[in-house]
Amino acid sequence: MWAELADVGRNPATGGYRRFAWTRADHDLREWFTAAAVSRGLDVTVDRCGNQWAWWGEPDTVPGVVTGSHLDSVPDGGAFDGPLGVVSAFAAVDALRDKGFMPARPLGVVNFCDEEGARFGIACAGSRLLTGALAPERALALSDVDGVTMAGALATAGRSTDIGRDEQALRRVATFVELHVEQGRGLVELDAPVAVASAIWPHGRYRAELPGQANHAGTTRLEDRVDPTLAYARLILAARRSAQTHGAVATCGKVRFAPNGVNAIPSLVTAWVDVRAPAGDDARAVIAELAALSEQAGGTFTEESLTGATTFDTELRRRLAAALGEPPVLATGAGHDAGILAAAGFPAGMLFVRNPTGVSHSPAEFAERDDCLAGVTALAAVLADLTRTPE
Amino acid sequence: MWAELADVGRNPATGGYRRFAWTRADHDLREWFTAAAVSRGLDVTVDRCGNQWAWWGEPDTVPGVVTGSHLDSVPDGGAFDGPLGVVSAFAAVDALRDKGFMPARPLGVVNFCDEEGARFGIACAGSRLLTGALAPERALALSDVDGVTMAGALATAGRSTDIGRDEQALRRVATFVELHVEQGRGLVELDAPVAVASAIWPHGRYRAELPGQANHAGTTRLEDRVDPTLAYARLILAARRSAQTHGAVATCGKVRFAPNGVNAIPSLVTAWVDVRAPAGDDARAVIAELAALSEQAGGTFTEESLTGATTFDTELRRRLAAALGEPPVLATGAGHDAGILAAAGFPAGMLFVRNPTGVSHSPAEFAERDDCLAGVTALAAVLADLTRTPE
Repeated sequence: MWAELADVGRNPATGGYRRFAWTRADHDLREWFTAAAVSRGLDVTVDRCGNQWAWWGEPDTVPGVVTGSHLDSVPDGGAFDGPLGVVSAFAAVDALRDKGFMPARPLGVVNFCDEEGARFGIACAGSRLLTGALAPERALALSDVDGVTMAGALATAGRSTDIGRDEQALRRVATFVELHVEQGRGLVELDAPVAVASAIWPHGRYRAELPGQANHAGTTRLEDRVDPTLAYARLILAARRSAQTHGAVATCGKVRFAPNGVNAIPSLVTAWVDVRAPAGDDARAVIAELAALSEQAGGTFTEESLTGATTFDTELRRRLAAALGEPPVLATGAGHDAGILAAAGFPAGMLFVRNPTGVSHSPAEFAERDDCLAGVTALAAVLADLTRTPE
Repeated sequence: MWAELADVGRNPATGGYRRFAWTRADHDLREWFTAAAVSRGLDVTVDRCGNQWAWWGEPDTVPGVVTGSHLDSVPDGGAFDGPLGVVSAFAAVDALRDKGFMPARPLGVVNFCDEEGARFGIACAGSRLLTGALAPERALALSDVDGVTMAGALATAGRSTDIGRDEQALRRVATFVELHVEQGRGLVELDAPVAVASAIWPHGRYRAELPGQANHAGTTRLEDRVDPTLAYARLILAARRSAQTHGAVATCGKVRFAPNGVNAIPSLVTAWVDVRAPAGDDARAVIAELAALSEQAGGTFTEESLTGATTFDTELRRRLAAALGEPPVLATGAGHDAGILAAAGFPAGMLFVRNPTGVSHSPAEFAERDDCLAGVTALAAVLADLTRTPE
C-alpha cells in the first residue's frame, strides 16, 4: 500500500508532499482509499463533509469502532503524517482477517479530509465540519492563497457545498482510535515503538494583519515610511520571547507581503502565528502579548482557530494501555481529528509510532519499517479488544 | 492615449498594475506602443533585447535624439511610473508636429523592456542587456517566483533568446532624455511642476538566504528548533538601523518562506534587501553589516545587482535647464534606464514631473493633469532644442 501512495502529490524538487484538500493529489488519494476499501469488501460511504468511511459490518444497526487518520499534507510535508494511520488501519483489518478474527460489532476505517488545513487555514476541517465545531458558512467562505474559496474548491472537485454536521455518520461511531507517527522524540527517549496518547495541548492559530503604505524603496525617506516589515520583525521576536517566558511554543511559519516587490515598501504584511502550550492559560498569555503588539502597530490579530486542551477518554486510554501491555503514555502539541471527536464527546484515543528524528511536517519525517509494523500489530490488538463483544 | 492603457494589467482588487516582463499584459502594452507609433508614421524597430524603438527620421545615417521610458510595473504599481514617459514622448511628437516643427536630425521614442525587474529581479534589464552591462547568459538563467527562467519567458512570448549588446541599435542613439513622474515630494516642496535630474544614487539589490530545519510547529521544542524567521526578523531591524546610521535607505519589501505553512517551521527564508544612499561608501557600509548578519545566521547574502552613483552629463543638464528656463534640479534614489545609458557613456538626462503625494510604486501614485501637460510642453521644448540642428 505504501508504494501506491509514494508518488502522489510529491514535489520532485524537495521530496516533500503537497497534498492539499480538494486538489488533484487529494482526488487521487481518495480514489486510492476507495480502491483499498473495495478490494477488501468494505462498504464505502462519504459523509456530507467529504470524509470517507469504509465499513466492515453494518454500522446503522450497532455503532462501530472506527480507526484511520487523514491523507492530506502540509506544504512539503512528509510521507507519514496522516497516511501512516490510514494504511495501518487497512493493514490491521488484513491482520485480523488473517487470524480469522470476526468482529462482534462493525469496524470502520476513515479518511478525514483537510486535516492539515494547509489550503484554507483551518486544521481538522473535515472532522470539525462533521461534528459541527466549524460552521459551514464560515468554512465555505475561507479562501486559499489564490483566492479560491472552499465553496469554489468543492464545486471544482465535483462535491456538494451542502456541508455541515452529519448525524447519520456520527451515529455510526461508538469509539475512534487514531494511529499517528509521533511528531517529537518522546518514544526515542523512552526506547519504545508505540505509545498511547494522554492529551492534546491547547492550540491557537492567529492571523496578524499589519498595514503599511506602499511606496518606492529608493525615494521615500525613512522618516516618511509606514513600513509594516518593522512591526512584523518585532512580532516574530516577541513570539519567541513570549513562548519562552510562558513555557509555550509559537511559530511564525507563514507570511504574505503585498505587493512583495524588491523595490516597494509593502502595503500589508499578513502573518500567521501558531501558538500551543501544555496549559491553556500559558497559550492565552502568549496570544494576548502578540495581539497587543499587533494592535500597537495599527494592525489586527484575528483568531483563525482555537482548540482548548483535549484529554482523551480515561476508560478508553486504560483499555488501550491494557491491550498493549502498558506502553508509554505521551501528551502532544499537535492537533488531530481524534482530538476533535473527543471534544465533541466521543470516546477517542490515539496511538503514536516512534519517529527516530522527531522531525515532522518535513520531507525528513520518518518511521522505521519495524516500528510501523509494531504499530499495525498494536492497532490490530486494540481493535480486536474493542470489537470482541457487541458493546 | 492614457485611457487606452488604463485597464492593461490592472488588478481589480487593489487598483494597482501588475505589468511584468514578457507576460500577456506586457504583450498588450507592446502592441499599444507599436500601434501608437504606426499611427504617427514612425518606423518601429525592436532591438536584440526586445526594447521597442519608433523613429521619426532615419537614424542609420545620423544618430538621433531619443526619449521614452518603460511600460512595465512593479507588483501593484501605479499608472505613472514608466508609462508617463512613453505617453509624454508621443504627445511631445504630436505637439512638435502641431507647431509645424521639422527636426533636423532623427527623433526616436523608446520603450525599454523589463525596467522594474519585478519578474526576474534585475532592474533595467532591457537597457542593461542592450548596453552589455548585464551578461545575456546570466539574464537568461534568472527565474521568476514560479521557476520560469527569462529564457523560457522569452520563448513563450515568441522572442529569440539571442539577446545581448546591440551595436546597431546603440549607434542610432546620440542623446537620451527620459521623462518620469517624481518619486518623492521634492517638487511639491519647491512648488514647481518639472525638474531636471542631476544624479542617481548608488543602488544595490541583495538576496539573503537564511536556512532552517523544517519541523512541526506544535511538537518541536524551542531549544530543538532551527528557525530562520528569527534571523530574518533581526535582518529587517538591522536594515533599518544601519540605514539610519549611514544616511541611506534600506527596504525588505520581498520575501519567500519555504514551505510557508502555518504549522511548519520554515526550512528556508529568502529575503530581498534594496539598499541606496547618496554616497557609495554609505551603501557599502549598510550592505556589509547585513551580509555579516546573514552569514552569522548560517546564511548567504548575494548581490543581484549593484549600480554605482550616476551623474548625468553636465553639458546636457545645462542645455535642458536652459531650454526650460532654469527649473529646479533634483537627485533621486530611484534607478532608471537613463542612468544605465549614462553609465554606458551616452549623454543622458531626465525630467521629473511633480507627484503631489510623493507616493510611488503604489496604486496611489499620481500626477495632476496640468503637471503632466507641463511635462509634455517641457519635453517638446527640450526635443526641439536638441533636434533643431543636425549636430
